[in-house]
Amino acid sequence: MSSVPRGRPAGPTGSVIGRALRLLDAFGPERRELTLTEIARRAGVPLSTAHRLLDDLGKWGAVERGEDGLYRIGLRLWELATRSSHALRLRQLAMPAMERVQARIREHTQLAILEQDEALFLERLSGPGSGSNVTRIAGRLPLHASSSGLVLLAFGDHDLQERILESKLVRITPETITDAAVLRRKLAEVRRLGHAVAPGYIESVATGVAVRVRDETGAVIAALSVVLPRDATVDLALVELHGAAREIERALGFRG
Amino acid sequence: MSSVPRGRPAGPTGSVIGRALRLLDAFGPERRELTLTEIARRAGVPLSTAHRLLDDLGKWGAVERGEDGLYRIGLRLWELATRSSHALRLRQLAMPAMERVQARIREHTQLAILEQDEALFLERLSGPGSGSNVTRIAGRLPLHASSSGLVLLAFGDHDLQERILESKLVRITPETITDAAVLRRKLAEVRRLGHAVAPGYIESVATGVAVRVRDETGAVIAALSVVLPRDATVDLALVELHGAAREIERALGFRG
Repeated sequence: MSSVPRGRPAGPTGSVIGRALRLLDAFGPERRELTLTEIARRAGVPLSTAHRLLDDLGKWGAVERGEDGLYRIGLRLWELATRSSHALRLRQLAMPAMERVQARIREHTQLAILEQDEALFLERLSGPGSGSNVTRIAGRLPLHASSSGLVLLAFGDHDLQERILESKLVRITPETITDAAVLRRKLAEVRRLGHAVAPGYIESVATGVAVRVRDETGAVIAALSVVLPRDATVDLALVELHGAAREIERALGFRG
Repeated sequence: MSSVPRGRPAGPTGSVIGRALRLLDAFGPERRELTLTEIARRAGVPLSTAHRLLDDLGKWGAVERGEDGLYRIGLRLWELATRSSHALRLRQLAMPAMERVQARIREHTQLAILEQDEALFLERLSGPGSGSNVTRIAGRLPLHASSSGLVLLAFGDHDLQERILESKLVRITPETITDAAVLRRKLAEVRRLGHAVAPGYIESVATGVAVRVRDETGAVIAALSVVLPRDATVDLALVELHGAAREIERALGFRG
């Protein structure tokens, strides 16, 4: 995801809690183990402050310090979030249907939700033969440039749509929609069909295909997608995805 | 998991960070949405303090407050942990092999690691026909009473084994090993075989079967398991699990 610009706002600097939590932002996929010095430097706080804050975070389990002196993110965070989050209950409910799609289509099968104006991927199932794919679990993609994002945007609220349409639509490949009028027409099409096809929008070699998933109130809460080779036909994938989405919707209590 | 006693130590009360993080402990699988009053009461802090701390936690994304006024755990926690944790990299590497085991054995297929003297389950794949199973993702089971726990304990360090052998071995079913001498012999057997079979130890109707998973240094870092009906033969499951464990070990760099 590193090639895609991110827009996360900086955390608060005022409170001691904010400062402590910002230390956690030093960690990432390529930075799973960090020294005290690295954490302090990345967060821009003195070494002694970082040490004290990490100590407090560690007592609860947010970070762990190994015998090698390196700090790591504590599994306590994952455990708490996984057990308590609504979104991850959705992921759990969706897994049987996702496994079936993956077994039949044999390409990356993904579940995404809207999170801070981006598509956040809760799950990705891949087989040995699955092709190229920039997505990863807990990774994000821009709404305008991914099939999942287009579904979440098309069924999102009016303010979200205007915010995205008025923002700079970053070009990721030559196929990415970067014109607001074109994007507006695409979103109308997605709403009409209940799914989005995104050929080459985020990777020139791949076509994303995503369908909406509705909760018991009929609100679209997720996008279920597969990533096909660019030239593959999308018909079978659409049939499987719509069937799987209906199954997830029934598990969520939707009776539409 | 509520029927299984837990031994998590209480968090620190001294620091403001500790107090803030302890608010998060109010959330759980049956308590995904809480009012301010509920959170304050569960954490034992005044309403005004809880409000201020939640505000600080919310600015970073650890909690979210809905339009209905209810607080929820923020996905930011899950995202950070999932992207940054070593254990969850292991889960990702293990997924293809786990999916194959699930497809062939068609019973719950699980991956667990040792975490604070318990088996913590990182993943569970289930099919429509899978039988009874107390495990859930991010759930925990006692080391002496689950096949995964027995593997993690058998290959754990000496201090861990002595700590568990000297503790009260809680009886969960009539089959649970509650005698330290019997457990010691069981652990020796698990070390010799590289796997554990636990018929009825945690649920009378089920037999857990778990194999060890080693990292590039040869250290056992996880247990891969399936949950079979109590009377099923375990041979095929053992063959599949050992094969899958070898595949995961190769992905981890083990060349034993």
